[in-house]
Amino acid sequence: MSTTPSMVVLIERKKRGEALTASELQWICHGYLEGEIPDYQVAAWLMAVRWRGMTGAETLALTDALVGSGRTLEWPADQPVVDKHSTGGVGDKTSIVLVPLLAAAGITFVKMSGRGLGHTGGTIDKLEAIPGLETDLDLDRLRRQVERIGCALVSQNQSLAPADGALYALRDVTATVDSEPLIASSVMSKKLAAGARAIVLDVKFGRGAFMANEEEAEALAATMVAIGKGAGRKVRAVLSPMDEPLGQAVGNALEVREAIDVLHGGGPADVRELTLVLGSHLMVLIGCAATLGDARSALAQLLGSGVGAAKLEELIQVQGGDSRVVADPDLLPPAPHVEVFESPQDGWLERVDARLIAQAALELGAGRRRKGDAVDPRTGVRLVVKGGRRIAAGEPLAEMHAASEDASRAALETLSQAFRWSDCPVHPFPQAHRIIEG
Amino acid sequence: MSTTPSMVVLIERKKRGEALTASELQWICHGYLEGEIPDYQVAAWLMAVRWRGMTGAETLALTDALVGSGRTLEWPADQPVVDKHSTGGVGDKTSIVLVPLLAAAGITFVKMSGRGLGHTGGTIDKLEAIPGLETDLDLDRLRRQVERIGCALVSQNQSLAPADGALYALRDVTATVDSEPLIASSVMSKKLAAGARAIVLDVKFGRGAFMANEEEAEALAATMVAIGKGAGRKVRAVLSPMDEPLGQAVGNALEVREAIDVLHGGGPADVRELTLVLGSHLMVLIGCAATLGDARSALAQLLGSGVGAAKLEELIQVQGGDSRVVADPDLLPPAPHVEVFESPQDGWLERVDARLIAQAALELGAGRRRKGDAVDPRTGVRLVVKGGRRIAAGEPLAEMHAASEDASRAALETLSQAFRWSDCPVHPFPQAHRIIEG
Repeated sequence: MSTTPSMVVLIERKKRGEALTASELQWICHGYLEGEIPDYQVAAWLMAVRWRGMTGAETLALTDALVGSGRTLEWPADQPVVDKHSTGGVGDKTSIVLVPLLAAAGITFVKMSGRGLGHTGGTIDKLEAIPGLETDLDLDRLRRQVERIGCALVSQNQSLAPADGALYALRDVTATVDSEPLIASSVMSKKLAAGARAIVLDVKFGRGAFMANEEEAEALAATMVAIGKGAGRKVRAVLSPMDEPLGQAVGNALEVREAIDVLHGGGPADVRELTLVLGSHLMVLIGCAATLGDARSALAQLLGSGVGAAKLEELIQVQGGDSRVVADPDLLPPAPHVEVFESPQDGWLERVDARLIAQAALELGAGRRRKGDAVDPRTGVRLVVKGGRRIAAGEPLAEMHAASEDASRAALETLSQAFRWSDCPVHPFPQAHRIIEG
Repeated sequence: MSTTPSMVVLIERKKRGEALTASELQWICHGYLEGEIPDYQVAAWLMAVRWRGMTGAETLALTDALVGSGRTLEWPADQPVVDKHSTGGVGDKTSIVLVPLLAAAGITFVKMSGRGLGHTGGTIDKLEAIPGLETDLDLDRLRRQVERIGCALVSQNQSLAPADGALYALRDVTATVDSEPLIASSVMSKKLAAGARAIVLDVKFGRGAFMANEEEAEALAATMVAIGKGAGRKVRAVLSPMDEPLGQAVGNALEVREAIDVLHGGGPADVRELTLVLGSHLMVLIGCAATLGDARSALAQLLGSGVGAAKLEELIQVQGGDSRVVADPDLLPPAPHVEVFESPQDGWLERVDARLIAQAALELGAGRRRKGDAVDPRTGVRLVVKGGRRIAAGEPLAEMHAASEDASRAALETLSQAFRWSDCPVHPFPQAHRIIEG
């Protein structure tokens, strides 16, 4: 245990609140990845980072070290690539709308996504509800696809920022996930390695987000924007509330269907709005629109025209999936048992709690109780109403999409608790977005 | 990595500053020792403990869990055992004086000791300067020896509090040694497992100690006393300054010789004084003296009578060593090269810096540069003077006991820096001891 004397010195310094240098952080990332620094020392360092934080320069240097641990993608200068990241929410299917929509507007969009994490959903789980769709593309295939159709929605590639993957796995089992510099450097290392010129970050806060309050979300957003700018990228963060689920569908096939609805010009207003906000910032950042207003009009028009839906069809086809689902969402796998949950009372529905809806969807099979569990793409919750209005007893509140009647019954209690009633008149939850430009 | 979900929850709770329960701490100690909880999770927990500390109840519970991880010794009710612990100093040979002295007074003394740690010396290294002496006794032999001669000076037995050994090894490489509850529970678990009825703790502070200031030392002392009382033992802590080395000898054979001098009624005043202070507290705690004054007179008389020296002879003989060294310390291994370091100047010698003397002794071969190194028992520094008096140029300040002339020359610079001069008249360093009774 005494063969790595310098790591104990670095842990000691971090423990005392000192900043490590760029070359020290590089040494840690490289040494851990190569198995030269044992995981128990890295774990102690991670907890010291969770305790003491990192300076801005240190966070940038860690991000650099993570990027430098693997391959990086470069895209032709005449084909700048955009990217987007969400810190995780409930019912967030925005990527499935935004990627084909911007590609239809001529903007190259390469989006690498993950699976569900904790109570939040993951774009890869959602996409896998589409029969046959492959998301695990090697870099050559990815490059050819992007050349051909201008977009991709794929899994995080393991050869990009591999030290981040290794550190994340260790953070997950050592209660060191919730560190702002570690979150920021982890997210941004993957984005930077994937080579995007412009990046929009959707940083969520509230009951259904990882960050409960807006201040924390804002601090994280500012750190991530600073990292991106430090690396010469155009970055903006959008702070978006996540108290109620986004849209009405929570569950993989249900969310894909809702994303398709939005691409056909329909779908819930909040999904549409967040798509337009994130998309117009990307258009301005990449120089394809002079103002946010111009960008928004252009995108709204595209949403009405169906070209985004056509691009999604193309993407599904190229990635080996059944692209007919875009024209006929009934081809998505249906749940065997659908049950309507009716309001037990007259009253003011204040809010539909995002975290409890996520929990109910998980109980129905849409999420994972533990890592490595399979998800049932057919299941989930579709809200019929959202908070902010008067409800009559017996009015349908939600549909439970379940594998069986028993499964549906088991999730009923959680689902019913998700509806928060008020004695006073209520209003719809505000959907204001704040922009962090660094 | 996902097979131990509850450990990540316990790390998370400690990270948030919550106290773990006794059964949770037991589960951690047992699980780590059995290899069921991986070291990276234990490392993260240790750093969280270093960050958040522990409540008093939690520290007691951890100590209990450490004790419960292995065997415990029990001694006959009519033969209560005393024990002593020092937090580590420079030139501290007190145990080698105190154990035979108290045994000569009829008090059973079972002392388990360690090797040198960092810049501080260890009683086991010192004892091994006595030709043939064995310190690694199994528990049966230890018990028989204690029955026969009433005392033992041996190595820490690995079957007592084994989880402490495992945790300590991990703390050492994860920069989590310097945590008060972890230090206190580690020390006290070994003392409690060894079955002593009364324990005196010598908690040192100053340049040559692990704790730089008295406040920290006092806090640690209070925590250790509380643990001991919580376990139903009689415990007192003595806060003792450690700015200058204790006594004049620093180095293994040199220190044994000095301990023998004290047992013969001579030796340096500060070693004699600390022996009388610690010993009289033990006598009062164990009920062999009504007052500290009575105890002190009895012990002072014994020091003059030579019965302590005779008991040390007996101890050495039973433990297989050459007991003739007590009557003839010249039989201890001599250094091949002894060189006198003379004062380069007239002036007021303010202080002899304990840490630099320890460093010089280490450079002469008396300590370890890294774990597992052998020590050269012959080498070290013998101070001719201590701080607090006027010195003339050319006056001998210290002897360097070295393996060779080269080795002596190599340590000269460090040695010379250890002598701190003042422009103003100076006084001897105070040796006041404060008592913490909890």
